[in-house]
Amino acid sequence: MILKREHFDEKQAQLYDVIIAGGGAGGLSAAVYLARYNLKVLVIEKGRGRSFWMQDLWNYVPRVVSGKELIEGGKEMALHYGADWLNGFVEAVTDTGEEFQVRVKYRFKNSDYPVFRAKYLIAATGLMDVLPQLENMQNVYEYAGYNLHVCLICDGYEMTNRRAALIAGSEKAINTAFVLNWFTPYITVLTLGAYPVGDEMRAKLADHGYPLIEKPIARFLGKDHVMDGIEFADGTSIKVDTGLISMGSIRHDGYLKNLDLLTDGGDIVTEYDCRTSHPRVFALGDLKKGLNQVSIAVADGTLAATAIWKEIRRASAPRKWTAPLQEAAARAEESARPEISLGAPRGG
Amino acid sequence: MILKREHFDEKQAQLYDVIIAGGGAGGLSAAVYLARYNLKVLVIEKGRGRSFWMQDLWNYVPRVVSGKELIEGGKEMALHYGADWLNGFVEAVTDTGEEFQVRVKYRFKNSDYPVFRAKYLIAATGLMDVLPQLENMQNVYEYAGYNLHVCLICDGYEMTNRRAALIAGSEKAINTAFVLNWFTPYITVLTLGAYPVGDEMRAKLADHGYPLIEKPIARFLGKDHVMDGIEFADGTSIKVDTGLISMGSIRHDGYLKNLDLLTDGGDIVTEYDCRTSHPRVFALGDLKKGLNQVSIAVADGTLAATAIWKEIRRASAPRKWTAPLQEAAARAEESARPEISLGAPRGG
Ligand SMILES: Cc1cc2nc3c(=O)[nH]c(=O)nc-3n(C[C@H](O)[C@H](O)[C@H](O)COP(=O)(O)OP(=O)(O)OC[C@H]3O[C@@H](n4cnc5c(N)ncnc54)[C@H](O)[C@@H]3O)c2cc1C
Ligand SMILES: Cc1cc2nc3c(=O)[nH]c(=O)nc-3n(C[C@H](O)[C@H](O)[C@H](O)COP(=O)(O)OP(=O)(O)OC[C@H]3O[C@@H](n4cnc5c(N)ncnc54)[C@H](O)[C@@H]3O)c2cc1C
Repeated sequence: MILKREHFDEKQAQLYDVIIAGGGAGGLSAAVYLARYNLKVLVIEKGRGRSFWMQDLWNYVPRVVSGKELIEGGKEMALHYGADWLNGFVEAVTDTGEEFQVRVKYRFKNSDYPVFRAKYLIAATGLMDVLPQLENMQNVYEYAGYNLHVCLICDGYEMTNRRAALIAGSEKAINTAFVLNWFTPYITVLTLGAYPVGDEMRAKLADHGYPLIEKPIARFLGKDHVMDGIEFADGTSIKVDTGLISMGSIRHDGYLKNLDLLTDGGDIVTEYDCRTSHPRVFALGDLKKGLNQVSIAVADGTLAATAIWKEIRRASAPRKWTAPLQEAAARAEESARPEISLGAPRGG
Repeated sequence: MILKREHFDEKQAQLYDVIIAGGGAGGLSAAVYLARYNLKVLVIEKGRGRSFWMQDLWNYVPRVVSGKELIEGGKEMALHYGADWLNGFVEAVTDTGEEFQVRVKYRFKNSDYPVFRAKYLIAATGLMDVLPQLENMQNVYEYAGYNLHVCLICDGYEMTNRRAALIAGSEKAINTAFVLNWFTPYITVLTLGAYPVGDEMRAKLADHGYPLIEKPIARFLGKDHVMDGIEFADGTSIKVDTGLISMGSIRHDGYLKNLDLLTDGGDIVTEYDCRTSHPRVFALGDLKKGLNQVSIAVADGTLAATAIWKEIRRASAPRKWTAPLQEAAARAEESARPEISLGAPRGG
């Protein structure tokens, strides 16, 4: 169910099996699995995450969907199987050794700060791509995620043999040109004039025939979400058919700080089953080391949920078909075919 | 495109980047990714695999689909992005050191045996669950995959607190009862009288209150794909609401025999990116060690395709924006906005 203020007292008193921070691709998959394992699970989602901005998910069988469809559909499934859902922002997590206490900011104005408790924590809060900061950000949002891409693996195909602007956030990020050129050689590299470019990189770009433009961008040109050019601060412009932004990303991991998880270059390091260096914390999808793709985040949800279920199951007393239950079953049999009514589901 | 006899000569002459044996959940995901990396890929699918028999895929966000929808949708995507597709049975694979030669049986009658060639091989042929062998197999197919389940992780939830028959193919398989009891304690264990059960197992079942029936099954009772009882060879019967078949599975790996891949209990051992002990062979999904779930197979396709692309990309000369191409681009610019026409896509 979707939690509102009136549910907070009751829900803060109980111990969830798992709290999932982030209801994007990975968190939703974990929620569906955990709910289908009859575990008590709460998903906390702030809204407008990375998958929300994804216009078209091109490479996830069996069909192209938008990020919004992915989120709405996954949420519906999780709720259907009995997961709890809270629209809120995870601010901080404390590990008491026995349980996690997860502090949430609820509502932007007149905020509440409920604290929910769980045996396990799944960190599935992903990240956000850094975008060029123009005076008019609306102009950036008009094209980013459409034909001004942020993910080469996702959208390289759409750039095939097109004139592409590569907007690089650092000299190191310019190297993306030498992967993008698998798809297209018609690459113009833009630094926004934000950092110096060394001689070696200049020579390499010249050798490949990729022009380098080191001026601030004034605005993207085009209409109806189709960018077809870029205008610079000095009034000059170039025509392009597509673009790729390679300016890094900001991880949504503030609430994890005092858990001291092992990271590598900022990405959370996990086992195959997504367990972090903390035995009761799992990390999924973009937040962890590896490919940032929906299919990966979804499988991560499967793996983490199944590992947690296994552990909780093994720590629980087995359910026996005791004499009273045998009798209940016999009585039920005498009447009609019993539906799902022979006892409360396990869980928690 | 879908290959027919008339295409065989041309397609046997070329070297594919990748041949994918099996177009189920994992193979289709790999095909979509590889095609979107502009690589030359051929999928070979015999038809009626495991995902074909899956009635409802319950736990794959964003919505419940049937196995047939998964296959049809994924196939459409792969074809759309330029993958080749062959309806055929992979019989044998030979590694010449430079390439794989993949021998296919095409058509059941008046067969052809074309041999296609590729740099990389993806093994995505999955497995098939062993079913009880009754005289009238139609009676088994009527319920298997409906409420007579084959996968506890997939369908445990549907069995919650229901009277369940566990059809175990060996004494070891009876242990599934002690996982199934997470979902329901109303378990009756059936051996079909096919093997002896030791005293220790008998005592454990008795302690849990799970009856053991050691008689051959005559038939499943019920109608419209809803099983509601089981009749035994001696004419007695029991009422159940659901069932779980735990009789093992048969791997579709005959064609891999002479590649001597490393296995563990029959499952192919892989790295995180699905690479097997053979550096140019990748294995996905049910065929490899790990969870047998659609989400896992789909992510495996992503991982294998991306690893192969990286390797092929790094072994290729970089595409430069040479003077002639610069001029072509300038000319194109003079006329209309160039679409995807400045050169042939890379690949192969
Ligand atoms: C424009 C664009 C196009 C893309 N195209 C593709 C594509 O074609 N194919 C593909 O496979 N991938 C694509 N991706 C990448 C894909 O979106 C990510 O890999 C995927 O969403 C990762 O899943 P996740 O669960 O790790 O993170 P997300 O899906 O981003 O989910 C994280 C969730 O956590 C929430 N959150 C963050 N912080 C908090 C907090 N403190 N409290 C509560 N909630 C919080 C966010 O709102 C978000 O909903 C694309 C991405 C973008 C931006
Ligand atoms: C009844 C049932 C219900 C299930 N429910 C769920 C569920 O709810 N959720 C879930 O995640 N999973 C479920 N599964 C499991 C799921 O179907 C598998 O995990 C998944 O299909 C594995 O993908 P794969 O690509 O490895 O294999 P498959 O999808 O089985 O694909 C392998 C393909 O290879 C083909 N093939 C085999 N041999 C050859 C050959 N020699 N030449 C050419 N082609 C060949 C087969 O025809 C098949 O299409 C269910 C399975 C069954 C049977």
